[in-house]
Amino acid sequence: MSTITSPVRRNAGVPVVFFDTTLRDGEQSPGSSLNATEKLEIAHQLARLGVDVIEAGFPASSPGDFAAVQSIARAVKGAVICGLARCTESDIRTCWDAIKDAERPRIHTFVSTSDIHLKHQMRVGRNEVIKITREMVELCVSLCPADVEFSAMDATRSDVDFLAEVLSTAIDAGATTINVPDTVGYALPTEYAALMEQLYLKIPRLDQVVLSAHCHNDLGVAVANSLAAIEVGATQVEVAVNGLGERAGNAALEEIAMALVTRKDIVDRPCHIVTTEIARTSRMVSSFTGHLIQANKAIVGKNAFAHESGIHQDGVLKDPTTYEIMKARDIGLTESDIVLGKHSGRHALQSHLAELGIHLDGPDLAEVFRRFKETADRKKEVTTADLEALVGEEIRQREDVYSLDHVYTSAGTDIISSSQVGLRATGEKRTGKAFTGGSIESIFLAIDDAVGVSGKLMDYQVRSITSGKDSLGEVRVVVEVDGKRYAGQAVSIDVLEASAKAYVRALNNVAMGREAGGARGDRVYL
Amino acid sequence: MSTITSPVRRNAGVPVVFFDTTLRDGEQSPGSSLNATEKLEIAHQLARLGVDVIEAGFPASSPGDFAAVQSIARAVKGAVICGLARCTESDIRTCWDAIKDAERPRIHTFVSTSDIHLKHQMRVGRNEVIKITREMVELCVSLCPADVEFSAMDATRSDVDFLAEVLSTAIDAGATTINVPDTVGYALPTEYAALMEQLYLKIPRLDQVVLSAHCHNDLGVAVANSLAAIEVGATQVEVAVNGLGERAGNAALEEIAMALVTRKDIVDRPCHIVTTEIARTSRMVSSFTGHLIQANKAIVGKNAFAHESGIHQDGVLKDPTTYEIMKARDIGLTESDIVLGKHSGRHALQSHLAELGIHLDGPDLAEVFRRFKETADRKKEVTTADLEALVGEEIRQREDVYSLDHVYTSAGTDIISSSQVGLRATGEKRTGKAFTGGSIESIFLAIDDAVGVSGKLMDYQVRSITSGKDSLGEVRVVVEVDGKRYAGQAVSIDVLEASAKAYVRALNNVAMGREAGGARGDRVYL
Repeated sequence: MSTITSPVRRNAGVPVVFFDTTLRDGEQSPGSSLNATEKLEIAHQLARLGVDVIEAGFPASSPGDFAAVQSIARAVKGAVICGLARCTESDIRTCWDAIKDAERPRIHTFVSTSDIHLKHQMRVGRNEVIKITREMVELCVSLCPADVEFSAMDATRSDVDFLAEVLSTAIDAGATTINVPDTVGYALPTEYAALMEQLYLKIPRLDQVVLSAHCHNDLGVAVANSLAAIEVGATQVEVAVNGLGERAGNAALEEIAMALVTRKDIVDRPCHIVTTEIARTSRMVSSFTGHLIQANKAIVGKNAFAHESGIHQDGVLKDPTTYEIMKARDIGLTESDIVLGKHSGRHALQSHLAELGIHLDGPDLAEVFRRFKETADRKKEVTTADLEALVGEEIRQREDVYSLDHVYTSAGTDIISSSQVGLRATGEKRTGKAFTGGSIESIFLAIDDAVGVSGKLMDYQVRSITSGKDSLGEVRVVVEVDGKRYAGQAVSIDVLEASAKAYVRALNNVAMGREAGGARGDRVYL
Repeated sequence: MSTITSPVRRNAGVPVVFFDTTLRDGEQSPGSSLNATEKLEIAHQLARLGVDVIEAGFPASSPGDFAAVQSIARAVKGAVICGLARCTESDIRTCWDAIKDAERPRIHTFVSTSDIHLKHQMRVGRNEVIKITREMVELCVSLCPADVEFSAMDATRSDVDFLAEVLSTAIDAGATTINVPDTVGYALPTEYAALMEQLYLKIPRLDQVVLSAHCHNDLGVAVANSLAAIEVGATQVEVAVNGLGERAGNAALEEIAMALVTRKDIVDRPCHIVTTEIARTSRMVSSFTGHLIQANKAIVGKNAFAHESGIHQDGVLKDPTTYEIMKARDIGLTESDIVLGKHSGRHALQSHLAELGIHLDGPDLAEVFRRFKETADRKKEVTTADLEALVGEEIRQREDVYSLDHVYTSAGTDIISSSQVGLRATGEKRTGKAFTGGSIESIFLAIDDAVGVSGKLMDYQVRSITSGKDSLGEVRVVVEVDGKRYAGQAVSIDVLEASAKAYVRALNNVAMGREAGGARGDRVYL
């Protein structure tokens, strides 16, 4: 029997760089659909959260992604703004064009190093990979000398000597951050830490650059793998809010941050995350992407801090530390506060929004104020969560082609549901009607009738924003048209109206050719 | 610099015992509400899944829990049936009464070992803990000599020498399984493994009993902690389906099982889990408890195997192993199969259900057949997922006091919604009506009117069971009445009807005093 030998604590006390890929790896997960305004709002919130690097997108993938990355690079201050590029001259130059106006731009490029990828995906030999790495990292450095990240895709299934050779080449060519992705979510924590250790041994200059972990959660250990890498000296983690990302997602930003904070007694690696912004960031990302969070999700799930929501057991009352290792307020969760009532004015609304970090004026403020009054007329108390939902609704609508004018439905047991809708499409009015089985079905068919398409409903979800029978309801739909998928979300005090608006919004995305993540051909699996 | 020293591979090749606590720790999580029939169905499914030990409940907590544990002990074959008992004579004797008819019963008792719990919760000294442990484990052994499990609550925050002393006492008194819970979800993987190593060193007889890990996911590392314990020799893991449980939940059964199977090359610890039953078990637990699963949940989330759902990127098509480490069919996910149409008869239904492991006859079969025909009349294709939902609906309804007779609603933009409902309450007919803001609000108020209560809606969620506008919708509500919370779920082809049924079911739980998990005073935090 032997005890575990602790690894040398490389980089004790050195802050961990948080590299957030919610807008790139997260956004390309199936069903996500963010418009440019939503991406910009999320990027602003990530900066408030204290993220060090924001991977804003993959500029070469589409003109829309290029524009979104460019607007983030121009508007968001404080964080490094990073764009992803495949290892080609065209991708890299396009990426640089999108990010060059940032305070601190970063180009992130990558190449596969595993034999399985070389054989089946890239169809090139190892020497070619070395050559591409040298030339393309040099190109990145010529454009963006201060900050270039290089990733070895599928690193955890690569021959470690070849991996070390490629990474050494990238360092020699001027890369300042070296990322070791567990692309397919295959590694276990001790194994991933051992790989990092081996790389430190095989690459003498590795401790002169930032070593980064990028972990996927296919086996449920993405956070643990990231922490294992930190324990052996890694200085950057690539994460996503709510653990979004391809398949089972990336390591969850909020879990790693709270583990570092809560267990600083044994990890001794600080970070710049402002933990009190976690809850709000999580809600914004969930609402904008349409990806719901399960109740037992660590840190940000509804039950994660159930001790504090009026449910107490004996021991908790006697001393909170009996069963609590974190406090809800540490992540910015507060009691559902009543912020405004029906008599609140525009100025009160504006200043409450400013407290939330949302700065609106002119027509945007007027529109949110209109929605607020509409809600306050029908709902006794308007809370912070309601305001966030109404602002989200406004941000979504800015890019709409069709808008819902009215919907009327009657439905019931053993009767055929009927719905009629009115839409506006760039000035023109359109109406539609349907008789059919269920209420939601009849609404969606009436909208199809008005728009002249036939969408296949792939997913439909509703959740209440707050408690109370008069809660706002948030609806998410995913619709398939001509084999492509489009998502839509909407909020209303009536579930039927929210459903109609969400469906109309999905058809707006059809009209604008804005497919939901996961359906596009331009995804990168890193 | 040093490399990681691998720990001695204790118990290489020895199967890991899967101890499932979905029905105990999972069931007491906020919002869960399982009736006795649902618990029995889940227990049968856990046995099919190959779980070694089923923790069926906490018999001393209520007569309802006693009855549920007893019915599982009497009916479910193949697995050990375990009941939880606090370290008191009364709890232990009640537990034994509930489980004694099982093929292989286990009594599981526990005591806190951390100073913080001793001081604030138990208010006893260390010597008293040793004495209680000896006496109560001896009592367990006198009743159930072959199989007694002892847990040291809050083990990870305990003084390790005192912890070792308590565990040694339990082993000397005859405990056959020793469990080391990370009750508050505080440990990190290397730390938890090191604790297990220390216990092996300090307790010579520890390798003669089963050593068990019980991990909570507060910091997102419950699965990694369990795997770390397995790596240093632990022979049992305590898990829950979908990672359910207190706060952020327990280690997810499906993630540990798939990690052991997928990475048997480095872990070398087999298990008895029949992985092809994972998807179905996950769906059943989600549907019965009402806890939705997020899309990016590892293994069982909708996006976990998105590569296989018609969405392919170049590399995946060339060779699946490029991006896949597991196959959807390994966990029993198959294409959404059309099993039955509107002309299918009762025998066809019965045999399809039997293939799903559901054996119905007599009035139960008749009722499911009625629901099937109703659905098939309104929906083109009835799939396996639909059948599971309809059977779940039947199981729920068996214990209802009130049932929904009819609901009619009309609603729309800028109009006041109106709803009228008819209920049956033990033969008697009741009606209710309401005019108010939203459609769902008016339905729930009409039901309040009919029943004569006033419930506060705490949570409302809807999801579609399959794709298509005519999909069945599953609704979940949590209602607060007199400060206590009650949950209800229901399925219908119409979301409004499903909402009405779910709300009526929650009021049934009010009538029967069946509070949702998390609201009761009898929870045990292990």
